[in-house]
Amino acid sequence: MINNTSFLKNDRFAALAGIELVKVEPGYALAKMNIEEKHLNGVNIVQGGATFTLADCAFAAASNAYGQVALGINASINYFQAPQGKVLFAEATELHASRRLANYNVDIYDENKELIAQFTGTVYKKKDKVE
Amino acid sequence: MINNTSFLKNDRFAALAGIELVKVEPGYALAKMNIEEKHLNGVNIVQGGATFTLADCAFAAASNAYGQVALGINASINYFQAPQGKVLFAEATELHASRRLANYNVDIYDENKELIAQFTGTVYKKKDKVE
Amino acid sequence: MINNTSFLKNDRFAALAGIELVKVEPGYALAKMNIEEKHLNGVNIVQGGATFTLADCAFAAASNAYGQVALGINASINYFQAPQGKVLFAEATELHASRRLANYNVDIYDENKELIAQFTGTVYKKKDKVE
Amino acid sequence: MINNTSFLKNDRFAALAGIELVKVEPGYALAKMNIEEKHLNGVNIVQGGATFTLADCAFAAASNAYGQVALGINASINYFQAPQGKVLFAEATELHASRRLANYNVDIYDENKELIAQFTGTVYKKKDKVE
Repeated sequence: MINNTSFLKNDRFAALAGIELVKVEPGYALAKMNIEEKHLNGVNIVQGGATFTLADCAFAAASNAYGQVALGINASINYFQAPQGKVLFAEATELHASRRLANYNVDIYDENKELIAQFTGTVYKKKDKVE
Repeated sequence: MINNTSFLKNDRFAALAGIELVKVEPGYALAKMNIEEKHLNGVNIVQGGATFTLADCAFAAASNAYGQVALGINASINYFQAPQGKVLFAEATELHASRRLANYNVDIYDENKELIAQFTGTVYKKKDKVE
Repeated sequence: MINNTSFLKNDRFAALAGIELVKVEPGYALAKMNIEEKHLNGVNIVQGGATFTLADCAFAAASNAYGQVALGINASINYFQAPQGKVLFAEATELHASRRLANYNVDIYDENKELIAQFTGTVYKKKDKVE
Repeated sequence: MINNTSFLKNDRFAALAGIELVKVEPGYALAKMNIEEKHLNGVNIVQGGATFTLADCAFAAASNAYGQVALGINASINYFQAPQGKVLFAEATELHASRRLANYNVDIYDENKELIAQFTGTVYKKKDKVE
């Protein structure tokens, strides 16, 4: 079983983006990002890459929490609206898993549970164990 | 016409990620990211969010370079292999544009032109001008 | 409000594929396809295009049921497993809608509620009314 | 090596949709569909499912032409414009292949080489040989 703190410490890009994992279970994860100036793009809204990175962290945490290395092979994101709040959450849930592949849905919403974006991703499960 | 330097200065998340725009024209952009420790994930490869953010910057630059505000409404990325090199480039080209929508392909490759990932994205063009 | 029977009569490709609409409401639709030999591919499983077409019909019915013409601008499908049953259902629900765009999720499952595939799609809403 | 004629005979949904394979090589395929009334939707344009099915056939032919069974695990399609011509072509090319996965781009265009839609897809390669 993954140790959330060590998982976060190792992911330097997630740390740079100020992302924290709130809860991680096999097939499930909740990640959080307090919106700061560093996340904004040229028109003062959260950059698409920041929103994607938050979702991707939840996706990676949920899919690797089984203890087997799971590599993201593709992802798709739909942006619904610019966030109005101060925090973004990404909640990843497993939709289906087979021996080598697994599919996740990630809802991205603000502190008022307003849906901001939706992400879907697929992992390829390697034979290696997560250290 | 967009001023590349000001466009980059305004995008604080792109700056945080160390992304620079090499060339920008209406419907085309080339972005670059020198791979540093801050881009790595828990297993020491470039985080999916960093690769996505690089592609998204090229996509945003190319689509906003016409001078009309273009908002990304969705994007899809396929990861092919972990980068072996020291630099990542993202090259965005417009596939099709209508009055309100436009579609882009973004190839992500390293300094040896090895294809690392592919991104496709759609923008919705607002009536506002890019400042 | 759309008349389900006329909507189906007009969609000749849906008719060719043997797809029927079970329920249609603004922002929601349930479509059904009895699996027949004509839906199978070279390895005797339901062709990806048949599964996609079923999902696309539910997506189109749900998004056009507001009475305003809604054109699909993109769609993404993840295939989880080959259907084991005799029937496929596609259930479309609206995730978010703005003035010009709307996003849908479509779950594709068999008669045992086993999830077979997941589809997401975006429509662009025109000013024209559905006849 | 796959026999194009037998491949088409076995895919009953492709046959139903009137799709023919023009050229098939490992990692490449060109498929064709003469637009007929049966392909149209309720507003008299080619149904999204028909366009997708055409692209999916080219994708399946190209990826299975190596002789190893390749299953489509996901696909994404962007629709650019309604076809004005009488014929649709789908041209699939391999972007990248590893031992278990491969990624394809499929351009869908009419007889005037006007780009109608773009499709990307991923296959999972099984150990089984194509019969």
